[in-house]
Amino acid sequence: MTNTYYVAPRFKGPPGQDDMPYILAVGPVTTSRAVKIALLADHAPEDREFRALTGDLRRDLKRLAGGDARHECVLVPCASAAESALGFFAPAKRKKTLVISNGRDGERAAATLAALERPVAILEKPDGVAPTADEVAAALEADHDITHVWLCHCETSSGLINPVGEIGKLVKERGKTFMVDASATFGAMPVDMGGDHIDVLIAGPEKCLESIPGCSFVVLRRELLIAGAGKPHALSHDLHAQWSQQESSGTFRTTPPTHSFVALRQALRELEAEGGIGMRRARYQRNAEDLITRMRAMGFVPLLADTDAGPILQTFLAPRDKKFDFAAMQESLRQRGFLISAGELAKRPSFRASCIGQIDHKVVKAFSVAMEDVLKEQDVQEFTPPDA
Amino acid sequence: MTNTYYVAPRFKGPPGQDDMPYILAVGPVTTSRAVKIALLADHAPEDREFRALTGDLRRDLKRLAGGDARHECVLVPCASAAESALGFFAPAKRKKTLVISNGRDGERAAATLAALERPVAILEKPDGVAPTADEVAAALEADHDITHVWLCHCETSSGLINPVGEIGKLVKERGKTFMVDASATFGAMPVDMGGDHIDVLIAGPEKCLESIPGCSFVVLRRELLIAGAGKPHALSHDLHAQWSQQESSGTFRTTPPTHSFVALRQALRELEAEGGIGMRRARYQRNAEDLITRMRAMGFVPLLADTDAGPILQTFLAPRDKKFDFAAMQESLRQRGFLISAGELAKRPSFRASCIGQIDHKVVKAFSVAMEDVLKEQDVQEFTPPDA
Repeated sequence: MTNTYYVAPRFKGPPGQDDMPYILAVGPVTTSRAVKIALLADHAPEDREFRALTGDLRRDLKRLAGGDARHECVLVPCASAAESALGFFAPAKRKKTLVISNGRDGERAAATLAALERPVAILEKPDGVAPTADEVAAALEADHDITHVWLCHCETSSGLINPVGEIGKLVKERGKTFMVDASATFGAMPVDMGGDHIDVLIAGPEKCLESIPGCSFVVLRRELLIAGAGKPHALSHDLHAQWSQQESSGTFRTTPPTHSFVALRQALRELEAEGGIGMRRARYQRNAEDLITRMRAMGFVPLLADTDAGPILQTFLAPRDKKFDFAAMQESLRQRGFLISAGELAKRPSFRASCIGQIDHKVVKAFSVAMEDVLKEQDVQEFTPPDA
Repeated sequence: MTNTYYVAPRFKGPPGQDDMPYILAVGPVTTSRAVKIALLADHAPEDREFRALTGDLRRDLKRLAGGDARHECVLVPCASAAESALGFFAPAKRKKTLVISNGRDGERAAATLAALERPVAILEKPDGVAPTADEVAAALEADHDITHVWLCHCETSSGLINPVGEIGKLVKERGKTFMVDASATFGAMPVDMGGDHIDVLIAGPEKCLESIPGCSFVVLRRELLIAGAGKPHALSHDLHAQWSQQESSGTFRTTPPTHSFVALRQALRELEAEGGIGMRRARYQRNAEDLITRMRAMGFVPLLADTDAGPILQTFLAPRDKKFDFAAMQESLRQRGFLISAGELAKRPSFRASCIGQIDHKVVKAFSVAMEDVLKEQDVQEFTPPDA
C-alpha cells in the first residue's frame, strides 16, 4: 500500500535541497542528496540489520576520534551527549570540574553542571580569546579540588578553535580527567583520543559529519566507563547501561532515532569518499577564507584575526551604521536562499555565518552576492572598526 | 553543490519502502511515501519556519488528545517523554505513584520510578488481563500515600487495551493525578484529556501517527505544569523549561531532531486526510481481524479472546511442536519482506505481529501467505492450546 495522501508543496522537487535555503546558520547543516535518500526507508530497531548498523557506527566513530583498544564509543539516542557526559563523570561532591569558557558554549556547560548540582570552577576568557596552557595550569594550581576539565573544541559563539592538544597535554600531566566537546568540529578538525590526551569526547552528526540531527555519541576510555558504572542522574543519561546494551545486542532502552543513525552511516561513507577529515577540512577552510575575503571587501569586520579564525564559522561585527537592521538582513538573505545566525557575543553586536555542511566556494560566492544586494538595500555605509 | 559521493545499494529505488521489509515488528512502523519525502530537506531550528512548525505541532497534538484551553502540549526532542513525565510529576517522598501493570510496559514504568528513587506501588495483573475499576479502587484504598496513577493505554507485550476512561473516572473521583502512556495507541485509539480525566498524557510519532521516531510529546493540564516548575531530575527532562521556551520562541535547549518534527507534521496531515482517528482505527481493526482470522486458520492461537484483542498488535502463542523455531521463522519472514517481534510474555513462549503503520489488509494477506510457507518449511503440526 502506498497511499500518498498529501505532499507539501515545498517538497515536490527531486531529492535535495533544491527549493530550500542553504543553511549557513549555526546548527544542523545542509546535508547531501545521498544522506537524504538514506532517509527513505523505515527500520525496525530490533532487526538484525539495524543492530549491525549501530555496531558499525560505534567502530567508525571511535576510529575517527583516534580511539584504540582502550576506548569505547557509546551512541546516545538524542542530542544530549553533553548532559550525559557531564552527569556521568563530573564529580558530585568536594571535587570539582573546571570549565574553560570563552563564550556561550562554555557558559552552557557550566550551567548544566550547576543544574546538576555539581561543583564547578570556571576559567573565563573574553569572547574570541583562547586560554593559554599557563592559564589552565594556574587554574588547576589555584584549586586542588579540580579533578575534571571541560573544554569546547570550537566555541560556536565566536568560531574560535581552542587548543585541545596543548591543554590536553597539561591536563594529563596534572593527572586530571580531560573532557572535550567536539560537537562543532568532529569530522573536519582532527582529534586524537591518545595524542590529545582526551578521556571523554562528545560530538554529534549534524555539523561537520554532515548528517541530520537526532542523535549524538561519546567516545571515551573504557576504564572510566566501567569505573563510573553506578547511579547516573537520569536513566536516559546512563552511559554505562547504554554501552552494555549496545555491546550485547546493538539495541537501546528507548526507541532510537533510526533514521538519524541510518543517515549517519551514509554520511560517514561520504566523509571517507571525500578523502577523510583532511579533505573536508580543506573544503571548509576554503569556504572560510573565501567568506572572510568577500565580507571584508564589502566592509565587514570579522571578530577574529585571520590567524585565529577557524574553518567552522565566522563572526562579524554588526555595522554601527544606524541603517543596519540585522533582522531585516536575515530575512532578505533567507528570501535569497541563505540562512544565517544572530550573534552571541557577550558585549558586541554581531552575526554569524557557518562554513560547514554541503556547501563549497560556489555557494559562498552566491551568498556574498546576496549579501552585497542586502547591504545596498539597507544602504549600509559605516562599519565597526575591530577595536570598537 | 550536490556531491553524491555514494548511494547505498539498498536505497537506489524510488522513494518508498519498495525494497525494504514491511514492519510488523512492534516499534516504529512503516511510514508513507509522503512522510519520507518530507525528510528530503534540511531545516535550521532557529529559522522562523521551523519555529512556526513546532507551534503547529503543539496545537494539533493537543487537539488530537482532546485538550482544551486548560491544556498544554510540550514537545520532547527525543523519545524519552515517559521518563520526563515520571521524573517531573511522580512524587519523590512519602507520597507514591501507583503503576497499573499487566506486562513489560508497566514493569518498565515501575523500573523507571525505582531508578529515580520515587516511591512506587504496583497493581500487577497477569499478561493480557485488564484491571477492573474495583481493583484500582481497592489499591488506592489500601495505600493512602498514593497520589499519582500511571497506566499504559496499550500494553505492547500482549496487545491488551487497558480501560483508560473507566480507570480515569475512578482516579478522578479519588482526587489523584492520572498519567497515561498512550505511546502505542495515539492517533488510532481516541483519548480525551477531559472526558477520560487524564492529567498527563505521553505519546510519540512512530506508532499510530505513522511518522518516524526521534521525538515524543506530553499533553497535560497547564496548572500541573506550572505547579511542577522546580527542580527536574535532569535538564533534558525539564518539561516546564521546555514548555516556556517552546511558548516564547518555538526553540529547544539542545539541537532538536528537525527531520522527526517535520515528518510528524506531514504524518498529521495524512491522519486528517485519512479521515482522522476513527478511520485509522477502522483500517487497523480490519488488519487485526484479518490477521487473527488467517493465523487461526493456520492453527495459531492468539493470547487474547477476540473481544479483548485490540487493533494495535496481536500476540500468538508459540506452537509447542518441537520443530517450531522462532528465530528461523523470523528470518524466513524477513527474507519474504516482513519483520515481526519476539514475544514478551512473562510465562508463555509467544511472538507478536503489529497491525499498524502504512499497512492494510492486502499486506496482511501477503504476510499470511509468507507465514504459511514458513510453517510448511518447518513442518509445524502441533500448536499450543489457549489454556496450556
